[in-house]
Amino acid sequence: MIVLMTDFGLGDPYVGQMKGVLLSHAPDCRIVDLTHGISPYGLEQAGFFLNASYGYFPEGTIFMAVVDPGVGGSRRILCLEAHSMLFLAPDNGLLCSVVQQCADARLFDLTRSCLAGGSSTFHGRDIFSSLAAHLYLGDSPESLGAEVPLESMVRLPVSAARETAGAVQGHVLHVDHFGNVISNLAIQSWDARLRGTLELRVGSNTFPVHRAQSYYDIPKGAVGLVAGSQGYFELSMNMGRAADHVSLAPGDALFLTVSA
Amino acid sequence: MIVLMTDFGLGDPYVGQMKGVLLSHAPDCRIVDLTHGISPYGLEQAGFFLNASYGYFPEGTIFMAVVDPGVGGSRRILCLEAHSMLFLAPDNGLLCSVVQQCADARLFDLTRSCLAGGSSTFHGRDIFSSLAAHLYLGDSPESLGAEVPLESMVRLPVSAARETAGAVQGHVLHVDHFGNVISNLAIQSWDARLRGTLELRVGSNTFPVHRAQSYYDIPKGAVGLVAGSQGYFELSMNMGRAADHVSLAPGDALFLTVSA
Amino acid sequence: MIVLMTDFGLGDPYVGQMKGVLLSHAPDCRIVDLTHGISPYGLEQAGFFLNASYGYFPEGTIFMAVVDPGVGGSRRILCLEAHSMLFLAPDNGLLCSVVQQCADARLFDLTRSCLAGGSSTFHGRDIFSSLAAHLYLGDSPESLGAEVPLESMVRLPVSAARETAGAVQGHVLHVDHFGNVISNLAIQSWDARLRGTLELRVGSNTFPVHRAQSYYDIPKGAVGLVAGSQGYFELSMNMGRAADHVSLAPGDALFLTVSA
Repeated sequence: MIVLMTDFGLGDPYVGQMKGVLLSHAPDCRIVDLTHGISPYGLEQAGFFLNASYGYFPEGTIFMAVVDPGVGGSRRILCLEAHSMLFLAPDNGLLCSVVQQCADARLFDLTRSCLAGGSSTFHGRDIFSSLAAHLYLGDSPESLGAEVPLESMVRLPVSAARETAGAVQGHVLHVDHFGNVISNLAIQSWDARLRGTLELRVGSNTFPVHRAQSYYDIPKGAVGLVAGSQGYFELSMNMGRAADHVSLAPGDALFLTVSA
Repeated sequence: MIVLMTDFGLGDPYVGQMKGVLLSHAPDCRIVDLTHGISPYGLEQAGFFLNASYGYFPEGTIFMAVVDPGVGGSRRILCLEAHSMLFLAPDNGLLCSVVQQCADARLFDLTRSCLAGGSSTFHGRDIFSSLAAHLYLGDSPESLGAEVPLESMVRLPVSAARETAGAVQGHVLHVDHFGNVISNLAIQSWDARLRGTLELRVGSNTFPVHRAQSYYDIPKGAVGLVAGSQGYFELSMNMGRAADHVSLAPGDALFLTVSA
Repeated sequence: MIVLMTDFGLGDPYVGQMKGVLLSHAPDCRIVDLTHGISPYGLEQAGFFLNASYGYFPEGTIFMAVVDPGVGGSRRILCLEAHSMLFLAPDNGLLCSVVQQCADARLFDLTRSCLAGGSSTFHGRDIFSSLAAHLYLGDSPESLGAEVPLESMVRLPVSAARETAGAVQGHVLHVDHFGNVISNLAIQSWDARLRGTLELRVGSNTFPVHRAQSYYDIPKGAVGLVAGSQGYFELSMNMGRAADHVSLAPGDALFLTVSA
């Protein structure tokens, strides 16, 4: 199975052309769209989506993730072997979320593969698709490029959530289709700390925050904090758009005060 | 075949994660997206789409319809056997349109299936997808839950179109991508009545309405009434957006006067 | 393989209903979405996408292209045999880009095929899908309709790019998801001419234009001219939206002055 994730949107023929190339090489392959709705050049968002999603796919899945502002430049094309899966992506930080918590990951540089060629503006179609199809057909990453040290991979700057006196400070990873504000507060790390009376501060505004089990449990019109389905705490409303209500957007800082 | 309909949009990884779960359980299953563009929490719209669409799919199709504002609450998870197909959905009224005109429908409550589990915010991925895959693999609804009376299903309040002196009053079910205003006036019920000189009233505005066979037959710039492809009359324009021209949106009342 | 391209968008159940019909007739067929994001009634755009895309699909592919403002009128339904593929579309100019540079194309009129029927507003579902499925199952175009002269096909007015004293004048074919302005300046025709010092004129504004190999090579904040992946020159920015910066939209004229 080949799973696609890009920032291409669906309004252009770009995703369709990639599928044409994939199916020209590997007529029987199953193609699944994870999403093509990554914000243009949204590397942190892409890493978040990929890391939150791979676990729902079967072993052996090939992820082809193309968010590639450096296309045509000198950035490498990488194949990461991790979690019994393969991840094909440009070397721009997109893959660094996936490699965490994986003891035996291996990295391959496919930049100079014999399959490279075509345009210098659309490697998703002209290089990545051929590589993904060949991996699907059984070529090993070793046969397509050289193993390189895992440490050579480009990493995104990590802005980890932290705790200061009486406050938890994180940032917004993503605002979803329903207006849920997905924070970078991992559930397993922050669950115990985010109990008690919670208050969200955004600029000079404060919002009381109700810890809730589900969206449905949040009082109508109020802001809730929910252990979300992507592994992180979310600010949400019951049938309302929390992001609009509290005026938070991806990348924004997020302050939660906690008192007993 | 498993057909998906949700209000998730395609910009998040949610639909892709559901497909990962479906294919982890049932690697060979065919998955078709009916649409993921239901308005958030749009139960009437979802019921309309489902009812207008199931007849175009082959017998044995499994529909998985997830518009689920009550996720994590006490709402049931239902499997409806009707029209030689299976419909999996939350018990919130989404399925009530499908059960009309079906003499031998049967209903099953899968809420306490052994497959239930996972997050309390994303049952589409954590419960519905496993259930749909098991139904696809041949498990019967009986084996996954208990049969319950059809009458126990939550119904949406029905606001049927009606006729008053000289006027037909309905409402707007949907505005489509082309700006066609799809009414709740079923073609077979209202065809004979909507002949003669037609006029649409919206607030203090009136628009003459041309009964037409196709969009192309409507005079340019005028509003037409067309027997639409979804089983209902539509207000339309020839290469124009009727909804914008007459200022009607989903849920709005719709008054048509008819004179000989 | 059946490849779909429409102006239907993905928010309505229309594309899903077409797939239901395709799969009811041909349960095993592979369906690929090229895109459903053609601007409503955008025939020139659709022709551009189709012509830029077919070469990435394997021989024998059936393209079903439905941008059909004349649905229900007297326009014909055509099947074009070209490039070892089949192209099914209404006779409204959509196919004229594909027939260029094909010596042995053949054209068939399927308007009166026995498969015709259904609504007069949604032939994509009620006629085209049945026809595409039958072609997929092995019916020849000859068996579904009569061969007609290639010259009988409706052609769109062509507004070719041209050169005047010191300036190249074209127009905008498309603005993509990233804000790239795709011109009608074919790379192979205009490559040699578009060298030297370039300047773009839009109304009373002028923009210096940097000829670049890739988006990444364009200086930040500047406008670049790139040989794009769709076969035409594009005005682009490095991680920015050129279309917004220079205020150009599809159909707009485009003037580039060239000086040594």
